[in-house]
Amino acid sequence: MTAYKSDIEIAQEAVLKPVMQLGKEMGIDPDILEPYGHFKAKVPLEAVKPEEERGKIILVTSLNPTPAGEGKSTVTVGLGQALNAIGRKAVVALREPSLGPTMGLKGGACGGGKSQVVPMEDINLHFTGDLHAITSAHNTLAALVDNHIHRGNELDLDIRKGTWKRVLDINDRSLRNIVAGLGGRLHGVPHETGFDITVASEIMAVLCLADGVADLKDRLRRMIIGYNSSGKPVTCGDLKAEGALALLLREAVKPNLVQTLENTPAFVHGGPFANIAHGCNSLAATKMAASYGEFAVTESGFGADLGAEKFFHIKAEAGGFSPSAVVLVATVRALKMHGGRAKDDLKTEDLEALEKGLENLEKHLETIHAFGVPVVVAVNAFVHDTKAETDRVLSFCRDKGVPAETAEVWEHGGAGGTALAKAAAKAADAFDGYHTPLYDKKIPVKDKIRRIVQEVYGAEGVDFSKEARNMLETIRQEGLEELPVCMAKTQYSLSDDPSKLGRPRGFRITVRELRISRGAGFIVALTGSVMTMPGLPEKPAAMEMDVLDDGRAAGLF
Amino acid sequence: MTAYKSDIEIAQEAVLKPVMQLGKEMGIDPDILEPYGHFKAKVPLEAVKPEEERGKIILVTSLNPTPAGEGKSTVTVGLGQALNAIGRKAVVALREPSLGPTMGLKGGACGGGKSQVVPMEDINLHFTGDLHAITSAHNTLAALVDNHIHRGNELDLDIRKGTWKRVLDINDRSLRNIVAGLGGRLHGVPHETGFDITVASEIMAVLCLADGVADLKDRLRRMIIGYNSSGKPVTCGDLKAEGALALLLREAVKPNLVQTLENTPAFVHGGPFANIAHGCNSLAATKMAASYGEFAVTESGFGADLGAEKFFHIKAEAGGFSPSAVVLVATVRALKMHGGRAKDDLKTEDLEALEKGLENLEKHLETIHAFGVPVVVAVNAFVHDTKAETDRVLSFCRDKGVPAETAEVWEHGGAGGTALAKAAAKAADAFDGYHTPLYDKKIPVKDKIRRIVQEVYGAEGVDFSKEARNMLETIRQEGLEELPVCMAKTQYSLSDDPSKLGRPRGFRITVRELRISRGAGFIVALTGSVMTMPGLPEKPAAMEMDVLDDGRAAGLF
Repeated sequence: MTAYKSDIEIAQEAVLKPVMQLGKEMGIDPDILEPYGHFKAKVPLEAVKPEEERGKIILVTSLNPTPAGEGKSTVTVGLGQALNAIGRKAVVALREPSLGPTMGLKGGACGGGKSQVVPMEDINLHFTGDLHAITSAHNTLAALVDNHIHRGNELDLDIRKGTWKRVLDINDRSLRNIVAGLGGRLHGVPHETGFDITVASEIMAVLCLADGVADLKDRLRRMIIGYNSSGKPVTCGDLKAEGALALLLREAVKPNLVQTLENTPAFVHGGPFANIAHGCNSLAATKMAASYGEFAVTESGFGADLGAEKFFHIKAEAGGFSPSAVVLVATVRALKMHGGRAKDDLKTEDLEALEKGLENLEKHLETIHAFGVPVVVAVNAFVHDTKAETDRVLSFCRDKGVPAETAEVWEHGGAGGTALAKAAAKAADAFDGYHTPLYDKKIPVKDKIRRIVQEVYGAEGVDFSKEARNMLETIRQEGLEELPVCMAKTQYSLSDDPSKLGRPRGFRITVRELRISRGAGFIVALTGSVMTMPGLPEKPAAMEMDVLDDGRAAGLF
Repeated sequence: MTAYKSDIEIAQEAVLKPVMQLGKEMGIDPDILEPYGHFKAKVPLEAVKPEEERGKIILVTSLNPTPAGEGKSTVTVGLGQALNAIGRKAVVALREPSLGPTMGLKGGACGGGKSQVVPMEDINLHFTGDLHAITSAHNTLAALVDNHIHRGNELDLDIRKGTWKRVLDINDRSLRNIVAGLGGRLHGVPHETGFDITVASEIMAVLCLADGVADLKDRLRRMIIGYNSSGKPVTCGDLKAEGALALLLREAVKPNLVQTLENTPAFVHGGPFANIAHGCNSLAATKMAASYGEFAVTESGFGADLGAEKFFHIKAEAGGFSPSAVVLVATVRALKMHGGRAKDDLKTEDLEALEKGLENLEKHLETIHAFGVPVVVAVNAFVHDTKAETDRVLSFCRDKGVPAETAEVWEHGGAGGTALAKAAAKAADAFDGYHTPLYDKKIPVKDKIRRIVQEVYGAEGVDFSKEARNMLETIRQEGLEELPVCMAKTQYSLSDDPSKLGRPRGFRITVRELRISRGAGFIVALTGSVMTMPGLPEKPAAMEMDVLDDGRAAGLF
């Protein structure tokens, strides 16, 4: 068997173009590029072109993922490279990694093999500081809120109802639930609170959905920092904090330009949680990619039931654009898991499990079709896949009239994805329309949720807890019924039960809580338990990391 | 009266040189400069020249400061500009500002008037991300420690003795004392802990004293993260976390190159607390400044009793260098306060109070003389000073044989400091020796403390609390007697009582606690109460901040 190099080894061997040259070749005025070292740059928002001069958007999504990961980012990067390889100018737009998981389990999140964005060490570590700026802005607001309460609480915030929490870009379970403000009257007011991971901050979602600095400030102003004793929301604007927050985010709002291993330009910017937020890179990065490419290749979080649905209903709606094609990533091993095979037993051929698992893929294809956008399936190749397995997936799709190609972009880079690139380009070239939302934004929030669980998940219906019903009433009273819904659900199943793989039927979804993300501009519907601050594993990835004597990074596998 | 522009107005009108050009003119190979935007760059440690090729160091310190501030950074920047104005090539080395105080009371910390480092908005906000990297490294270690305890606590850390705390670069009193790890068995082990501000992190001191990456890793490895049930220190190295921390600090260790309003190069890098740490910019920045200037002009924290003493005994010792001259900043208004005048009543002439206050200055001059380095007094001019007052300070110094000049660098930039520059250059030119430490590093810690309080503060002696005496024993047992001492004392008085201004006599110093900063390489002696997490004031500076429509920052006065 071939001995493969690790991601970091491949990345460190890459021959990168200086970012000023990369930008110049794309047609970006070098004077407006702000270099961060020689291979990263921030691009000001003014560089986004008007809609009529922008290219088309290709959205990469997947079936319900398995704990091993399906390589969606790898396919996104690889497809961008492959499009350029077939002579179609493409620019990639990706989320930027969170440091917490990097130090915990994942080690890195820049794609993999020969389809990575580079310099991967920088992108995986502090990059251009966007997440740190969000952490600063978020926690500055928390300190301002607590200082307000400490100094008389003129806004009548009720600490028993919870106020604005804090965030850190660290996996730290000890901070999930804390009591702060202890130590006596000089040290604040004692109250229960906690920390989320930075990517779960509403400010991350705000930054990713803001259309310019004025919109950023409006969204920050609207964020709810708590409730007063009459139950009315109190906002960041009531505290007059939006100016300082916007100032702290002044650089972070600008998309980051880097490149892939094959010098395809990539905007890597923003990375909100894919459960309590919408899970896509920033609007600005996607528009920027479309401004300088015939195609912008971008991805959404988790599977199509969460990521693609939110891309259509939240991100595309906020950005006023539509994808022209969707690439749905499937893997033989995930399909076998959906067909009942155990997750540590996926290396041998099992056509029966595969066949059964295909109904998970089938459901997602139906969903994309419901949005009215052409779909192409990418079978992301893994070493243990057999030809019979791969062929069965391809024929299953093609029999339904869905173009399907294997993607060997991990092993071969762009050259391993040319068939996929041709199919995706053909689909996008042929589509000049706009997607069809699955609900009208004017219908009540509870009906929007019902539409999603029935049309996208295949559920029979939805039940609301008493708390959620109360919040539906608050939403009505506050005049927020027109906001879109952001579903927080397990990514592993179409249902709200992570153990129900494949295509579960005859189930209902329970919404136990609703939260208003007024700045982000959506209502979060929480189903099942949602973790917003991860913990570290038994052996954290950090233990293997190091700086070598020559200054190179080690351990970011 | 002249109408003066605000600092940010002056800064925004400055004509900056592109940093690549600035570096090139200094003789730094552009290929090794890492630009952060067009006016900031990181310079790798390899660019430090061998000692024999480096220029001389001029240290700027002050008398005991008052709450209004004496303009020490302004004089440091102005002196750098003035040296260049008289044809002597000087490079400035300064601490980088902390975001917490910027959002709280101070608004900014880059010097002032026509003696500022720029771009001041960037430097005051996230700059090149150094403080964020330290926050990340510090809190990653905290998460690793808590995860270790959560997963069985093999190292037998005793949580009752306190373990590694967390930091944020925010003024947030609510986080000083918290209980973390609440919520049940999946969420860590409940324990009392808290947050310090990032500049109080031992990692900040480590970064500022590290002589290269190998030394950085050694220092990180030695940091004490807690004590086991037998009372033995447990270190970061026991947890094998130093590699990950060093990786997170890989960029942060490199000094940041910016410039002053008059295009004098300035390295702005590192900024440890001046009480529980040594309060100076990084060793690397100072060496870098000396590598590219005939003179490196640098400052230390607070007054000479704390800042200069620590510069000599901690920083210069770690760096193997000596300042060739000390510039001691005095102001008429501070001298009048030391002479008994109230702090809100300093605008009218009072030669009597001034005369009395001069003994504070006198004590600091004696201290610098004890170190055996030439001293020059800079009388930093303020609008309300009268000629009679200024003349009295100058004659007082000159009568003692100490060169003294006014510094009008706030109002006139370098042109307002040429006489000072000539005096400082003359003093430094004439001195080819090495300072004389006030204690031999081989004497016990308690004797080092006694030497400092007697020789530098003028105290009669020192008393140790029972807790401190126990720690002296631990220090002996652990073989750490040779470490230097880092005094944590009020900056406002030579004594440990902030209300005793002027030159107090007949007092003793009480050391209530000793802490081992094993990584930084010093023993912290705490006297009085020391605040390591500030709070926000009634009206935080953040409330005035904003981003204007043209993208410029507002409210960073």
